[in-house]
Amino acid sequence: MKLLEEKIIKEGKVLPGNILKVGSFLNQQIDTELLREIGMEISRLYDGCGVTKILTIESSGIAVAVAAGIIMNVPVIFAKKHQSSNVDSSVYTASAHSYTHNIDYNMVISRDYLTSDDHILLVDDFLAVGNALHGLISLVEQAGATLVGAAIEIEKAFQGGGDKLRAQGIRVESLAMIDRMTDTEVIFR
Amino acid sequence: MKLLEEKIIKEGKVLPGNILKVGSFLNQQIDTELLREIGMEISRLYDGCGVTKILTIESSGIAVAVAAGIIMNVPVIFAKKHQSSNVDSSVYTASAHSYTHNIDYNMVISRDYLTSDDHILLVDDFLAVGNALHGLISLVEQAGATLVGAAIEIEKAFQGGGDKLRAQGIRVESLAMIDRMTDTEVIFR
Repeated sequence: MKLLEEKIIKEGKVLPGNILKVGSFLNQQIDTELLREIGMEISRLYDGCGVTKILTIESSGIAVAVAAGIIMNVPVIFAKKHQSSNVDSSVYTASAHSYTHNIDYNMVISRDYLTSDDHILLVDDFLAVGNALHGLISLVEQAGATLVGAAIEIEKAFQGGGDKLRAQGIRVESLAMIDRMTDTEVIFR
Repeated sequence: MKLLEEKIIKEGKVLPGNILKVGSFLNQQIDTELLREIGMEISRLYDGCGVTKILTIESSGIAVAVAAGIIMNVPVIFAKKHQSSNVDSSVYTASAHSYTHNIDYNMVISRDYLTSDDHILLVDDFLAVGNALHGLISLVEQAGATLVGAAIEIEKAFQGGGDKLRAQGIRVESLAMIDRMTDTEVIFR
């Protein structure tokens, strides 16, 4: 998606450790005009695929999931992050590791909102090694729901998570795919 | 807002301790059709007031803030919740208490995204005693920004937070105002 790539080049900041900072337009501060375009692009990509719900993970996935959900006119559900593993039988849960914060956490969603009738589109802001997506896919499988695919704002393709999922036959659409980053430059695939 | 009140009556669940559960349509699972209407109502209420940015707090405020931001075509910024008070000089910070989780936390926002040029509309899902709003107002004051007002999805008016803010001259618009709740019933003002 040209508009997003241009914005990344213009406003994104590359920090040590392969971190791409997009706080000025994608999280913390959200450019809602860009976000609406992103929602429309996700809607276009998954048009006619029978999506009944969008699933994301708090909190930076919520904005893009809501933008897509409003345009696709489907409900959005989001998994919560719990640090304790003390969860009850009313929820599905999956564990994941955050490289950003270097902690393990559980993603939790109520069984009331994710059911075997659902055709789920996963939406998130970033895809790197794919930890968050793996957790969300596990929640979908536990519920016996159908996974339609995933829509990601920015994929760090050089970290391999997206291609691993594609090799498993999962449809992963990323609006900006970064092939590599230098100290000063972002190179798209 | 009639549509929201009807939804609360139909799908809301009153739990002990004056808790109103709206997880099936407002948080956890988000009814995006309703959310778009809510965004339009917030836009209508603050039309012509010169809002330059919407400020909310993660994570349940993000959905409604984004909906309003998309329709009003202004950026959305959100304060993050940190449990540690270990913050640096690049951010504004305010402390608050969560009655839901019974913890104190800090709300934190980068100085880059909240400035003295901004005219801020606060948006959140719930208003009860007003802890979260007080924290957000403090962030606005620290930045020297102008506070335009607040837009809330559900105000528990019987807990007094909204009226205290109004008595201070702050414009607070709540789309559903609950006067009291019994074990089985929600009564609107």
